[in-house]
Amino acid sequence: MKKQVLLMGSSGSIGKSTLDVIRCFPDLFAVSGLTVNSNTGVLLEQIAEFSPRVVAVRDAFQAEEIAKHLPPGITLYKGDEGLRQIAAETEYDIFLGAMVGFAGLSPTIEAIKRGKRIALANKETLVVAGELITGLCKQYNAELLPVDSEHSAIFQCLVGESSSNVRQLIITASGGPFYNLPKEQFSSITLQQALNHPTWKMGSKITIDSATLMNKGLEVIEARWLFGFPKEQISVVVHPQSIIHSMVEFIDGSIKAQLSTPDMKLPIQYALAYPDRIPAGHVTTNFPLIAQLTFFEPDTSKFECLNLAFQALHAGGTAPCILNASNEEAVSRFLRGEISFTKIPYIINKALDLIPLCHAPGMDDIFDCDREVRLAVNSF
Amino acid sequence: MKKQVLLMGSSGSIGKSTLDVIRCFPDLFAVSGLTVNSNTGVLLEQIAEFSPRVVAVRDAFQAEEIAKHLPPGITLYKGDEGLRQIAAETEYDIFLGAMVGFAGLSPTIEAIKRGKRIALANKETLVVAGELITGLCKQYNAELLPVDSEHSAIFQCLVGESSSNVRQLIITASGGPFYNLPKEQFSSITLQQALNHPTWKMGSKITIDSATLMNKGLEVIEARWLFGFPKEQISVVVHPQSIIHSMVEFIDGSIKAQLSTPDMKLPIQYALAYPDRIPAGHVTTNFPLIAQLTFFEPDTSKFECLNLAFQALHAGGTAPCILNASNEEAVSRFLRGEISFTKIPYIINKALDLIPLCHAPGMDDIFDCDREVRLAVNSF
Repeated sequence: MKKQVLLMGSSGSIGKSTLDVIRCFPDLFAVSGLTVNSNTGVLLEQIAEFSPRVVAVRDAFQAEEIAKHLPPGITLYKGDEGLRQIAAETEYDIFLGAMVGFAGLSPTIEAIKRGKRIALANKETLVVAGELITGLCKQYNAELLPVDSEHSAIFQCLVGESSSNVRQLIITASGGPFYNLPKEQFSSITLQQALNHPTWKMGSKITIDSATLMNKGLEVIEARWLFGFPKEQISVVVHPQSIIHSMVEFIDGSIKAQLSTPDMKLPIQYALAYPDRIPAGHVTTNFPLIAQLTFFEPDTSKFECLNLAFQALHAGGTAPCILNASNEEAVSRFLRGEISFTKIPYIINKALDLIPLCHAPGMDDIFDCDREVRLAVNSF
Repeated sequence: MKKQVLLMGSSGSIGKSTLDVIRCFPDLFAVSGLTVNSNTGVLLEQIAEFSPRVVAVRDAFQAEEIAKHLPPGITLYKGDEGLRQIAAETEYDIFLGAMVGFAGLSPTIEAIKRGKRIALANKETLVVAGELITGLCKQYNAELLPVDSEHSAIFQCLVGESSSNVRQLIITASGGPFYNLPKEQFSSITLQQALNHPTWKMGSKITIDSATLMNKGLEVIEARWLFGFPKEQISVVVHPQSIIHSMVEFIDGSIKAQLSTPDMKLPIQYALAYPDRIPAGHVTTNFPLIAQLTFFEPDTSKFECLNLAFQALHAGGTAPCILNASNEEAVSRFLRGEISFTKIPYIINKALDLIPLCHAPGMDDIFDCDREVRLAVNSF
């Protein structure tokens, strides 16, 4: 029987790759619903091809506009409440969370409460509320599967192995476009330079996160909750070719790595088909053509965001939420040309320093904290 | 409860590494028996440290010599028949087969017939009689675990995965000391050059096999029987650093690799402890220190032995036995300085060409074939 996929964030890079996978395997998967932030042009094309029963548009103005052009029989949900409702009320088997940022949290909670399979590309959900989210997954028997290539790699390396036999998770980082740039030149990095990622083509927010290495910091926090290991058992190694997507070292010294040419369709189809694998000719890796794989220690004096993420994980409570919200705001301002590249870690550092922590937050505290931080950092 | 290990071939490189592991974990393992070909000096030291109840010496003269020096209470077995008996009649839990060459076959069969765990470093056993051996393992419910680093890597990568989801096994090869040597210079390769392996310190026979790449050919045949995949699903890639010990590619394009700094203690302890892993600080891999990993297509015009192995696997029947016996004889003659390096593949090729195949051999046919080939190739 076909699995029905509710694809949250269908106009983004992960969303489009997910539809590529579904297009390749029409006997296995169908689209039950699609959501976008504001890109209704892309949404209309996707509706024509995949015939979902429900759609949601977060942006209120765009939602009103698209209402006039929808084919008959499709239900439209609007705004943040619409995203929550489409997850809470419509029919589907797999929730694929590919929204950007904190906005993914609320719909993900609804899907978890219905015991669905959660294929999560939206790492911010686990960053800000990892303990609560994994607790809810247990409570409602919802399956949480990573879509990030790094976490999919770790998940695959752990298949058939006992958690108690793990020495450490080793998350690989491409290092981004500035890995070899001297620290003195970081203050003059332009937006255009920062948007030019060497190996992955992604949305603008995650591309900036990759340039600051905050993306890797968020992934460390995400890994902590997905796999249940403390930060002492998570390390980061720079691997510019992005062929090894991550590794697990076991207590006997054996290391398993998952690798392939970089292609997001691979972790997406794995999360959709798990525990099976589906034959896919579109991902091939020719080893003799891979000239070399290299590895470096991350330079945290240049990439402060990585250290800030480890600090936030260590502090616990709402610290990762403060880290995430201040980062989202700082990156937005950098994308609008309002601040310099080096101001991003400055703002996050200040937010972590000045904004009081809640040590054992409930879900409401997380939402409150997120709002509070966004207001506060605008003046930083 | 301690696992009792019968260590066949204790004076060799794998044998010594096995005793290193047992020495580290005296609560987990004990030595029930030790066997050597002829190195009774080393055997006496090992007896003093590990107190086995039984020992065997293959060489008749050395067996008589050591009889005078054995501590009381130790039973001595002698000759090829003694090796068979010690496997067939004494008490142990794990049979660790680290003998060199065809001589390993007969004792291994005895251990299989008793339903023991077979930790197999002696690849020739599976090369010459893979189909019969794996059939016997099923019949007698004996567990066959690889000790070769490459096959241990593949075994580990397959844990928790379904065989039907495998696209191919990718066996890595260091390439040996002559990987970059021009073909014209192969005829002047000296014994000393051939014995100087770049990454692994091993016995002389396997070191020559590594220099000709026959070792990799034998491993391809071994993999075919250990894991049950046809030769079309087994490939070889040269990886000079020997950090990635081998890989498995799945049908979705995902590849798993097992890696570590080269250390035979790792696959040995894995085979002893499986399905558990034992905490071992002696194997550590520091990724930032691994400057680079490189990969090349094997050059079969220079390394004919690799092609000959694939040909023998394709021909089936006793062809792998002919390949192995002619290789063992040719390598012996090269080690004695009687023939040149390039004469090794010449002899094997001639043996495969001239000696008639038995297409569906029984175990006796295998032993007959081995004897016949050894006699025949002496005149090649």
